[in-house]
Amino acid sequence: MAMAARDAAGVLAPFKLARRNPSATDVVIKILYCGICHSDLHQIRNGWGITIFPVVPGHEITGVVEQLGSSVSRFTLGDRVAVGCLVSSCHDCHSCNEGLENYCPKLVWTYNSHLPDGSHTMGGFSTAIVVDESMPTFSLMELPSFVIKVPAKLPLDTAAPLLCAGITVYSPMKHFGMAEAGRSFGVVGLGGLGHMAVKFGKAFGMKVTVISTSPKKEREARELLGVDDFLVSTDKEQMAAAAMSIDYIIDTVSAKHALEPLLALLKVNGKMVLVGAPDAPLQIAPITLLAGRRMIAGSLIGGIKETQEMMDFCGEHNVTAIVEQITMGSVNEAMERLAKSDVKYRFVIDMRKSESEMQR
Amino acid sequence: MAMAARDAAGVLAPFKLARRNPSATDVVIKILYCGICHSDLHQIRNGWGITIFPVVPGHEITGVVEQLGSSVSRFTLGDRVAVGCLVSSCHDCHSCNEGLENYCPKLVWTYNSHLPDGSHTMGGFSTAIVVDESMPTFSLMELPSFVIKVPAKLPLDTAAPLLCAGITVYSPMKHFGMAEAGRSFGVVGLGGLGHMAVKFGKAFGMKVTVISTSPKKEREARELLGVDDFLVSTDKEQMAAAAMSIDYIIDTVSAKHALEPLLALLKVNGKMVLVGAPDAPLQIAPITLLAGRRMIAGSLIGGIKETQEMMDFCGEHNVTAIVEQITMGSVNEAMERLAKSDVKYRFVIDMRKSESEMQR
Repeated sequence: MAMAARDAAGVLAPFKLARRNPSATDVVIKILYCGICHSDLHQIRNGWGITIFPVVPGHEITGVVEQLGSSVSRFTLGDRVAVGCLVSSCHDCHSCNEGLENYCPKLVWTYNSHLPDGSHTMGGFSTAIVVDESMPTFSLMELPSFVIKVPAKLPLDTAAPLLCAGITVYSPMKHFGMAEAGRSFGVVGLGGLGHMAVKFGKAFGMKVTVISTSPKKEREARELLGVDDFLVSTDKEQMAAAAMSIDYIIDTVSAKHALEPLLALLKVNGKMVLVGAPDAPLQIAPITLLAGRRMIAGSLIGGIKETQEMMDFCGEHNVTAIVEQITMGSVNEAMERLAKSDVKYRFVIDMRKSESEMQR
Repeated sequence: MAMAARDAAGVLAPFKLARRNPSATDVVIKILYCGICHSDLHQIRNGWGITIFPVVPGHEITGVVEQLGSSVSRFTLGDRVAVGCLVSSCHDCHSCNEGLENYCPKLVWTYNSHLPDGSHTMGGFSTAIVVDESMPTFSLMELPSFVIKVPAKLPLDTAAPLLCAGITVYSPMKHFGMAEAGRSFGVVGLGGLGHMAVKFGKAFGMKVTVISTSPKKEREARELLGVDDFLVSTDKEQMAAAAMSIDYIIDTVSAKHALEPLLALLKVNGKMVLVGAPDAPLQIAPITLLAGRRMIAGSLIGGIKETQEMMDFCGEHNVTAIVEQITMGSVNEAMERLAKSDVKYRFVIDMRKSESEMQR
């Protein structure tokens, strides 16, 4: 059972999905929860012009192992597991060899993509998924597979968004040296990704400032998320007073926006990483970069090994998403609300409670 | 004796300059050579609208110690020394404490700037300069002073451009981890800064590619500079074939230009640093950064400690600029040629041979 959009109207409706029979290296996962990412909304409406219909979205998947291929040894039945944005890569390129399957030219997305055998991948808005767990035979190391283990401490519903929203901000924080206790850390945009960036910032011992266009988000940001400071990006006085006060910034905004006022917040040696992908080009004034040896970079989700590391870190530090649980009966309404950024902070679909709604 | 521009026509003419009487912590330097930087041309024509006339330009200064203040112990008469873009900073801010005097909010430029006592600084287009060598009294470390020592092996004429063109490319190569043997290194623009970037790239053991709008520069780049590859940036086929082939890029171009075709040359994890400062904003497509975890940064000259390090590195590895020596009698003509990028690769003024020309 699954939910699919048949065309660019993007309406999700019940859909019968035949998952493949598990091979010796496959893991069959009973999906218990799936988060809703902004890219799911984009894809069901063919926002990037690359959607293959029917499309079953969803790449923030948690569940339990239900069946195992004969040669799978790393998992046992009932294991709490997760699947993120990727289900396959070549394991043979420079990126794969560095644990960066997310930059492999042959990566296979969890949905709307094709496996090497030509089959069309279908995502987590469904009751089960089959993921190949095989390791490349030439490798001497135990490589991580595309099935992630979820620490016992983490609830499967609030852990689901870690698979995309979580790793998307965690990975650049680690890679670009932005996870340093005592430093000041700015988070632009307080949605699914932004609230995870705040949580990681606090877990790393940083002073966290949210930079948002919405003054009404301030109170909750401070009280619920423990944010240390809040800047309204349209308030020029407030922004000017905060010039050169922040070490690192994660910018999660995917709409077109001005980068200069954000770069001006950075200290000398400041770093800003974009994890949202506005369609339109953005402008930068070279002198803003030169005058403070500032850098701006981009980052796209994360590699599999790092996803497991993040998951373990979240288990140790109790980092989870704040979610609104829904069932499939209200998924189209949830998509409308997501389009208006009306969610605190991530929708997660309870798949068991949705079963009857997917049969209709 | 000096040469100054009196107004924004930018014509340099003989000028009598009274340098201050040396204090106990001053070093008096007899200037033997001074390089001509593109910013000198900008400043004498008031290109940034900040020039205080009369202006004596020049911040690539080499010479010998001619006189010493009573408390100066690090230098002796006759020492071969150099002065770059800075002659003072606060020694008390975060940047100064990290050896980044170049980002100190109170830094004093070698010319067209004001010392704390209000006096107007005048640059190296002159026969002598007086530079304060004092150390902050509270410091327990021996801090570097604004007077740099020149290794015995380096000729003073071809060492002069190291003080700006050299450190401007050396500093980001070191800071951003771009000085790695075996990596591929792209240099955009083959002028004063660009040819120094090539030389450092080769000295660090990298595979160097020049990216230029001028196909006619290729032969000399390969034969004289030992460049490994040459891309004509306007040749779309050539650029497309080189996509994702370069680890690190230094972009030395100070005119407005497209960044996207350059960023597309970078591998995953590629880094590009801007050291030229186009006035107009430049455009970047966020997806180009995201899709390969690429970064773009800016860097402005370098700190004093690092300038000395670079100078010592150049002494060990025989890195110097390729220069056209001129005298003051042809300095205005040289400025015209510089405006057309008609120089290989840096003009350096021989000050002793210019003495009679500055008296007229």
